[in-house]
Amino acid sequence: MSTPQLAVNSRIRPTPYSERVEAAGVKGYTVYNHMLLPAVFRSLVDDYRHLKQHVQLWDVACERQVEIRGPDAARLVQTMTPRDLSRAARGRCLYAPLVDERGGLVNDPVVLKLADDRFWLSIADSDVLLWARGLALGFGYEVSVEEPDVSPLAVQGPKSDELMARVFGEAVRAIRFFRFEPLDFHGHPLLVARSGWSKQGGFEIYLDDSSLGLDLWDALWAAGEDLEVGPGCPNLIERIEGGLLSYGGDMDLDNNPFECGLDRYCNLDRPIEFLGREALARIAESGPARRVVGLRIDGQVLPSCRRHWPVQAGGESVGRVTSATVSPDLGCGIALAMLDRGQWTPGRRVEVATPDSVRAATVSALPFI
Amino acid sequence: MSTPQLAVNSRIRPTPYSERVEAAGVKGYTVYNHMLLPAVFRSLVDDYRHLKQHVQLWDVACERQVEIRGPDAARLVQTMTPRDLSRAARGRCLYAPLVDERGGLVNDPVVLKLADDRFWLSIADSDVLLWARGLALGFGYEVSVEEPDVSPLAVQGPKSDELMARVFGEAVRAIRFFRFEPLDFHGHPLLVARSGWSKQGGFEIYLDDSSLGLDLWDALWAAGEDLEVGPGCPNLIERIEGGLLSYGGDMDLDNNPFECGLDRYCNLDRPIEFLGREALARIAESGPARRVVGLRIDGQVLPSCRRHWPVQAGGESVGRVTSATVSPDLGCGIALAMLDRGQWTPGRRVEVATPDSVRAATVSALPFI
Repeated sequence: MSTPQLAVNSRIRPTPYSERVEAAGVKGYTVYNHMLLPAVFRSLVDDYRHLKQHVQLWDVACERQVEIRGPDAARLVQTMTPRDLSRAARGRCLYAPLVDERGGLVNDPVVLKLADDRFWLSIADSDVLLWARGLALGFGYEVSVEEPDVSPLAVQGPKSDELMARVFGEAVRAIRFFRFEPLDFHGHPLLVARSGWSKQGGFEIYLDDSSLGLDLWDALWAAGEDLEVGPGCPNLIERIEGGLLSYGGDMDLDNNPFECGLDRYCNLDRPIEFLGREALARIAESGPARRVVGLRIDGQVLPSCRRHWPVQAGGESVGRVTSATVSPDLGCGIALAMLDRGQWTPGRRVEVATPDSVRAATVSALPFI
Repeated sequence: MSTPQLAVNSRIRPTPYSERVEAAGVKGYTVYNHMLLPAVFRSLVDDYRHLKQHVQLWDVACERQVEIRGPDAARLVQTMTPRDLSRAARGRCLYAPLVDERGGLVNDPVVLKLADDRFWLSIADSDVLLWARGLALGFGYEVSVEEPDVSPLAVQGPKSDELMARVFGEAVRAIRFFRFEPLDFHGHPLLVARSGWSKQGGFEIYLDDSSLGLDLWDALWAAGEDLEVGPGCPNLIERIEGGLLSYGGDMDLDNNPFECGLDRYCNLDRPIEFLGREALARIAESGPARRVVGLRIDGQVLPSCRRHWPVQAGGESVGRVTSATVSPDLGCGIALAMLDRGQWTPGRRVEVATPDSVRAATVSALPFI
């Protein structure tokens, strides 16, 4: 399949930064939460090299916020996740898998606790607003569930602290990992978190006024010229190297958190109430039937992984590759794969059926780097 | 903005027909329910001409089915829609707006009543599965809410009856509008409905076994050679001419059914229980504050409508265009617009601010043709 064009219409929402993203020469988009998400600027490899060396601005407005507010807000959020949020302090970002009554993954947002009765769920690609609102209505919880005008802009890469300090002041350097603070931008306080979907360090700015989007982009761009600031986006290579799973591609409603290596976010020993507690307790006891691992694939060329690839060992099906690419820094193919129990041991040799050919591969722990 | 490429990864699902769609030369895709939906083959105008004259195969697998099954199935489906489903017979397709507690549109599926305790919601672009499952859990309804392996293939255009009769037998001609019947395909019964997202006539085949997808496509293709069967997809021009609204683009959670001209699906006079009854009753009494109408836009060239365009009258904002294109058959621009109350009268002159220029336009009733 050749690379198709994306037919953009009003059903697919632009972002407050789209004008600048286009001016910066975006070459490919994906669609995420019914919104445009840049996928490549120069090339996957050029973007990857730049991300690891410099600093990039990422239009991740598609990380929509689901705001849950009201007397039952904490209760509703806890109902949705097996992670114990009872001791969370304001100003914390909490990665929290959401599960349904069977323990199936609904989404894997970062939860921002804004106040005891007010949370943002910074979501991956599924309509959490409908899920949360449906639950709230059914259970009769006293909460509002809304999508506010919030469009995150990520600043990622090793020079992020320097760039952010120039625009938001030196205070930004003191923000700890997965904490957020309100910082002034042109007289408007914006929540700034030390977080982001790369392993290169950086921040996410929760812009809560779309009309400031171009100003924010321009201010960061202008301040970063000598830092070689560039446009960027979540990078397939870097995120597989770092073992970051993409909801909808690497895991979905048919997977539970244990299959996805999210065991530490399942606080079954705590006295909290959430959907799927019984289901997760059963899985915890018996152990998951499959699990996400890394694969190093022999060779330095791979086709695009547009659909899952079968994985075999000794002629038997043992799982599937869910994402794959070639890592320039590792000099081989790397993949995320969901493998059956008994197939997880690092070093185990398996075979991956790519659309082009069958390739030998070695099970690897995650992250790769 | 130039036309960008779509970066396809495993998060965006292919369909059982994707191989044939690609072989048929798809030029552009959109993403719908996390799945590929073809948007153009030859050109928008060529596809439009062909659709009106011949017969097309449409890969609309992205019209995912949400299956609601169990003792409380009818109750849950009724809870979600203001349309009275109590008298619906099996074998009926029912267009049914889904609304939340405020009367906001969650989706506008076609509901297929398979049995008294089993329904498919053939959905537009939002995660109705999460909405329905959330409500079911919260209300404690005894139902299952699943996405079955069902991938509709549409056959649309004036020669649809002839083509379908050749593959499914003469019985297909007797299927009435918005009814479905099981018909044999290679020993496998498939539900076939007289329906589809065009005004050119045709059918939707609810393929419930992905492994038969290529066979189904091939059988229809082979049988239609002398009918000039071609690949197709929902066509922007034809659907605006026909006044078909696209969920997510022309209407969303911020709109109620009255704003979208869906008054006749709000059976407020019937003794049914659904979310949003009070909200819709209030709106019905006061009348909606805005409404979808057609606009004929002067001139024969328009930019792509990638985001909503402001509409003004006498220097005041009166609404926005949500979708627009040029109609070859009407010889002018045509648009769907959400206009404020008092601005709806057909014949009224307004101004549309396209990205290129301000254009004069005339309010028109829908459909245009």
